Amino acid sequence: MDETRTEIGELGEFGLINKLTEGIIRINDETVLGIGDDAAVIDAKGKQTVVTTDLLTEGVHFNLMYTPLRHLGYKAVIVNLSDVLAMNALPSQVTVSLAVSNRFSVEALEELYEGVKLACRMYNVDLIGGDLTSSVGGLMIAVTALGFVEAERVVLRSTAKKGDLLVVTGDLGGAYMGLQILEREKEVFKEAPGAQPELEGVEYILERQLKPEARKDVIEHLREIKIQPTAMIDISDGLASEALHLATESKLGVRIYEDKLPIDQQTYDQAREFNLDPSLCALNGGEDYELLFTIDQSDFEKIKGDPHFSVIGYMAEQSEGCELIFRNGGSTELTAQGWDAFRKES
Amino acid sequence: MDETRTEIGELGEFGLINKLTEGIIRINDETVLGIGDDAAVIDAKGKQTVVTTDLLTEGVHFNLMYTPLRHLGYKAVIVNLSDVLAMNALPSQVTVSLAVSNRFSVEALEELYEGVKLACRMYNVDLIGGDLTSSVGGLMIAVTALGFVEAERVVLRSTAKKGDLLVVTGDLGGAYMGLQILEREKEVFKEAPGAQPELEGVEYILERQLKPEARKDVIEHLREIKIQPTAMIDISDGLASEALHLATESKLGVRIYEDKLPIDQQTYDQAREFNLDPSLCALNGGEDYELLFTIDQSDFEKIKGDPHFSVIGYMAEQSEGCELIFRNGGSTELTAQGWDAFRKES
Repeated sequence: MDETRTEIGELGEFGLINKLTEGIIRINDETVLGIGDDAAVIDAKGKQTVVTTDLLTEGVHFNLMYTPLRHLGYKAVIVNLSDVLAMNALPSQVTVSLAVSNRFSVEALEELYEGVKLACRMYNVDLIGGDLTSSVGGLMIAVTALGFVEAERVVLRSTAKKGDLLVVTGDLGGAYMGLQILEREKEVFKEAPGAQPELEGVEYILERQLKPEARKDVIEHLREIKIQPTAMIDISDGLASEALHLATESKLGVRIYEDKLPIDQQTYDQAREFNLDPSLCALNGGEDYELLFTIDQSDFEKIKGDPHFSVIGYMAEQSEGCELIFRNGGSTELTAQGWDAFRKES
Repeated sequence: MDETRTEIGELGEFGLINKLTEGIIRINDETVLGIGDDAAVIDAKGKQTVVTTDLLTEGVHFNLMYTPLRHLGYKAVIVNLSDVLAMNALPSQVTVSLAVSNRFSVEALEELYEGVKLACRMYNVDLIGGDLTSSVGGLMIAVTALGFVEAERVVLRSTAKKGDLLVVTGDLGGAYMGLQILEREKEVFKEAPGAQPELEGVEYILERQLKPEARKDVIEHLREIKIQPTAMIDISDGLASEALHLATESKLGVRIYEDKLPIDQQTYDQAREFNLDPSLCALNGGEDYELLFTIDQSDFEKIKGDPHFSVIGYMAEQSEGCELIFRNGGSTELTAQGWDAFRKES
């Protein structure tokens, strides 16, 4: 792909950091000091600071055979911003650390950083630090994200109330179906290396997997329409898993209606093609990075008909348990079959 | 060592996180919310927040053949606290993320976390989050540390003035000599697996390598004796490298006197035994985690004779360059030969 290949050892750690962080301009007033000292300095200006961190490892969270490095850098930032947003805070800084083996060239790392910097620009976030080290294994990316929020606006997982409506943003299951297609094409490619991948008509769900977005727009929109969710979580491990977190930590039960699940047409069609139940993909497919939250029933009028949101159920008494209600009126216990980095392969 | 071995897959990610973070009590008022939601929440209470992050990788930063997991967990926290302290801030929170392969048992990770929690207790720091994931390669630890400082107390690397005294805490080169001994014993053990390691009389320098401390005591002491350093950095890559950082970023030169370098007797004796120049070990051996700072000459009386500190030189004009002055009055250009995670092995 690239014509030149510069070895990482030629630049050394400091030279490489300088090259990768070139052209970074401080965006937020709260960022007092960025990259270049022992630590960065931020000033919350009276707000509370939200802190989250995620580790992405090659072969577990991503496969470089079909993940462009630029997209990987973008996604590594996004998954952390999504956690900040799920506290009802606005993200403002990230640190990005990489462990890389010498099979990566400087050019490859520059591509990865292009994605990191693009995500920072798109979301008005400052890249304030990180670490860069060699690895004897594969590529690993550790991101920490910070954001700010007024103390009274923080939204936890544990504060939903009985009778609250359960609301989800966007649509579900797309990232999972995108992954299925990429895995299929990988197998095809292994058997016939010259084969062209069949990706027409599935662009949306591929992007859901490879270049997801965090719902900053939703957090800003909720402020505009004056809704403070009673509890909130982002969907990284799958709707069912996250809904169970909200219920368990709020000491409540939950009801989710299958016919209310927002599923995009591409997701639906591809699920059918793979002989999968689209509803199960929406319930258990992870990495959608949508927001799942609860609101007081009195707020329903504010979101009624709003294309950002789908009301998919409500919070029940803890004794009523957690259930999925089928289209035909039957029901089953809601169980989490989503992503777990330590799950045994079945 | 342990009688039982519990596989990580038996607990899953959430069960494992619960087990490892058992018994954590919030210490700092600034920690509003710790582990258990999408993100932690902190309240800087009007101070500025300092943020730093480090990534430690197996086979690069540590060798599990001679690094007890408890010490590794301790050290992973300490190296980050040291960066916070080097900004003249007091550390208050950490996040700790691990990528582990299935060759580690739950019991092994508990041991590592014992070290993490011990460091947190010793330094009054709250463990507020992290991530836990599997790895196809070796063990990797990513730590982010936060701390607070009044805006007017922040000390950068770039603000030393010409004529300022260069001061270092504790003694230097010990961690490096400790590493040399561990590497030697590893080779001995490889050739004769039954051999008992020869570690008598070198306990201090082994501890410098395996279980270093961060100089929180020094930062508190400087406040008591009313010294605000004009510039500061912590010594992770070696004195020469860090002194060059201070000089370069303050647009100054520097003079370091060989005869002023603080070297412990064990470090000195072992360097001689290994046919190494003790001064070079002090200048280029990394991982001492001491503080290197500059003070105005008018502050000299406050630290004169203080056992915490050694005045080892002064800041010169940029045009005068960076030099090491030998005992005999001769001199040489100061060069950094310290740690670089990407350095080619010579």
